Amino acid sequence: MTFFATNSVVPESLLEGDPKELARALVACRPVDAAEVLNRLDGDAAAHVLQAMPTPAAIQILNEAHLDQPAGLVERLPVDLASAILASLHSDRRADIFRELTKRTQRLLLPRLASPIGETLEHLLRYPPQSAGGLMTIDFVSVPADWTVEQTLKHVHDAGRSRETVYTVCIVDPQTKQLIKVCGLWRLVTGDPKASIASVAWPYDPIAVPPLTDREEVARLLSKYNLLAVPVVAEDGHVLGIVTVDDVIDAIIAEGTEDVQKLGGVEALDEPYMKIDFFTLIRKRAGWLCALFLSEMLTASAMQYYQTELEKAIVLTLFIPLIMSSGGNSGSQATSLIIRSLALREIGLKDWWRIAARELPAGLVLGAILGVIGIVRIALWQKAGFYDYGGYWPLIALTVGLALTAIVTFGSLTGSMLPFILKKLGFDPATASAPFVATLVDVTGLVIYFTVAYVVLRGTLL
Amino acid sequence: MTFFATNSVVPESLLEGDPKELARALVACRPVDAAEVLNRLDGDAAAHVLQAMPTPAAIQILNEAHLDQPAGLVERLPVDLASAILASLHSDRRADIFRELTKRTQRLLLPRLASPIGETLEHLLRYPPQSAGGLMTIDFVSVPADWTVEQTLKHVHDAGRSRETVYTVCIVDPQTKQLIKVCGLWRLVTGDPKASIASVAWPYDPIAVPPLTDREEVARLLSKYNLLAVPVVAEDGHVLGIVTVDDVIDAIIAEGTEDVQKLGGVEALDEPYMKIDFFTLIRKRAGWLCALFLSEMLTASAMQYYQTELEKAIVLTLFIPLIMSSGGNSGSQATSLIIRSLALREIGLKDWWRIAARELPAGLVLGAILGVIGIVRIALWQKAGFYDYGGYWPLIALTVGLALTAIVTFGSLTGSMLPFILKKLGFDPATASAPFVATLVDVTGLVIYFTVAYVVLRGTLL
Repeated sequence: MTFFATNSVVPESLLEGDPKELARALVACRPVDAAEVLNRLDGDAAAHVLQAMPTPAAIQILNEAHLDQPAGLVERLPVDLASAILASLHSDRRADIFRELTKRTQRLLLPRLASPIGETLEHLLRYPPQSAGGLMTIDFVSVPADWTVEQTLKHVHDAGRSRETVYTVCIVDPQTKQLIKVCGLWRLVTGDPKASIASVAWPYDPIAVPPLTDREEVARLLSKYNLLAVPVVAEDGHVLGIVTVDDVIDAIIAEGTEDVQKLGGVEALDEPYMKIDFFTLIRKRAGWLCALFLSEMLTASAMQYYQTELEKAIVLTLFIPLIMSSGGNSGSQATSLIIRSLALREIGLKDWWRIAARELPAGLVLGAILGVIGIVRIALWQKAGFYDYGGYWPLIALTVGLALTAIVTFGSLTGSMLPFILKKLGFDPATASAPFVATLVDVTGLVIYFTVAYVVLRGTLL
Repeated sequence: MTFFATNSVVPESLLEGDPKELARALVACRPVDAAEVLNRLDGDAAAHVLQAMPTPAAIQILNEAHLDQPAGLVERLPVDLASAILASLHSDRRADIFRELTKRTQRLLLPRLASPIGETLEHLLRYPPQSAGGLMTIDFVSVPADWTVEQTLKHVHDAGRSRETVYTVCIVDPQTKQLIKVCGLWRLVTGDPKASIASVAWPYDPIAVPPLTDREEVARLLSKYNLLAVPVVAEDGHVLGIVTVDDVIDAIIAEGTEDVQKLGGVEALDEPYMKIDFFTLIRKRAGWLCALFLSEMLTASAMQYYQTELEKAIVLTLFIPLIMSSGGNSGSQATSLIIRSLALREIGLKDWWRIAARELPAGLVLGAILGVIGIVRIALWQKAGFYDYGGYWPLIALTVGLALTAIVTFGSLTGSMLPFILKKLGFDPATASAPFVATLVDVTGLVIYFTVAYVVLRGTLL
């Protein structure tokens, strides 16, 4: 027997074969593994397999967050089966899938959901999908504070819930039903059965969130306080639902992906790369690429402006790519450090000047290092006879060295301050992509370079 | 009363005041909030506060992963207190902190840890800190498969563990002690007390990992299978410990940070930006910055090589920054998409050609869009009289348009293939930073640009 998860859950040959046979094989697998097999089929084939299996098995698979495009599958099922499955899904998953259905299917299925399922679904749909309200499940355990541990355990046992949602018990005021405390199931199991539930709970006020809290904030609280779930509480103190750790992990991973994609200068895809259609892929990239291109056109204008200098000292053009890219590189380093620190709340808006006070000297040191390397490079090539920069080569080397120091310092400062400016203006600081910073720094970098050149080379080359 | 976590847990004035008073205030807070307050003090002040509080409270705070530089605090405590605290920490946290102590303190403290604490600590230290063995706790519940649900619940109750580690019960073979199944505590609480523990567990083989599994893989399994813990199993099938979801969340966040920082062209900092000392910050950035600078020097060589063309048609230099940055931007878009997909296992090494088959047309379309914009820009400026590109301006516009198409295509292909090449060579694909790709594309971009120019403008300008 193997102790470790294996990847091949069904033989490849079954994927092409009879849907009934594949359905039989999948019923024996873990639901999430079955979901991953269905992900590899096209929509029609996957829907046939779902139809061929017992409904409870199909429900388990549709409950898996790893199933891609579940709404597409539900659309393809007969209406009776679709509504039966939808009615039995976890409440949060039901809302997620329903949200993705076409308006037509929504109108078709909603009346078929018996009360109170339909009402709670409509209620959940009112919250944005990436908010605590959009992530929460309404399957949670809530008991009055005057119960004993034993009573609570019996209640959990009798309710016979199907999920880990029972790990977090909400303790409410017997009269007002407001949330008073939160208690982990383990404290009940390890506690004295006769003790009151309130006495075994943590002595602190509960950690809870309003329904419109962003998923990033929910993730931060769960991770900071090591919780398995956070209650979502209305303004009047009543518990609306709980957000569980499994949903939050998916949210954290999605946020990490968004951060990486934005830093790379792509709009967040929200779907796996291979699942996204070609046109959407282009659309998500072309916007930023064109915006950057249009801004970068300023470099052509700047070059035109300095054309006289260029013609007099064509040797200056040789170092333009080198100098500009160094500014961009130092800028994207600073940006990536700052957007992540902001995202993790290690720093806040008010810290901008502390960051600037670090990035200014850091940029100067890094720029000076590159500047020295640049000067050595020019001197080496000149002395070794690889290239002749002309009689004024020491001045050219000096220009390059000084310009590098200035531009890397400017890049580090711009790259570190841009996320703050964006956040202050109400944008996601992660919008400060590496290409965005590079573009900003490129145009200014040219101006800095030609200004330094003008000062150093005036009266000689220029 | 407030239902939502607030940030200010103690009045600011206490931070500067008497350590004893601050200690008293912190004992009343949640341990993690107390840890965050200590993070704001310098090491000596924080150590004084820890000394001034009852030892159990200090232990709770040191158990918090959010406490920065716990080893530095332990170093500052009297040896007796330090060893008493260390002995009472969670086993995984104890190993984490011990690993960071100076060799001198390690030698001082290890003999003071009573058996078996010292032995298990030495055992845990043998695993790399980012492996399953390095993350696991040895506080877990393990019961023979022939026990009933009732017996198991009583065992959990009597063991009276202090943590959520009881949420996952390992079921082992009564004779061989090998892991047979894993069962969530909720299934015990909701199950029939007289039933055998094996009958209420999931019917599938357990998900378990060998101790050297990377934290990223552990995170992937926990997230995929919605688990709260994964047993770590030796080759002989014995359970060594479990990795719990709270440690994995921290690992997922750390991996996200690493991905962002690497994409930005910085070595992973492994510490919050504001906590890292200036010299380390420079070191983590200077390496990549210099490597990129040295490679980017090839652009100067390429420019030197094309100097004759440059002198004949200085108008070509105007578009160099524009064209080069577009290649870099499209490259970093492609890279950020691919490294994240690889990290999340949405795609594998074998998929490289499917990616190439998408990126080639995507690059062509994106390049053509930019190319058209570039041509329009040149024509507009020429016709509007903003700038005179000379009599051959339509040919120059054509050169720019064609070069943009070619370079953006090349950038998308390079950016998407580089992570695969790095992974194939055994490096972390995330090493393919945006600046790395931009540098690769810059040099080739120049060659492409001048080649296109030579073909289009031969006999006219060149």
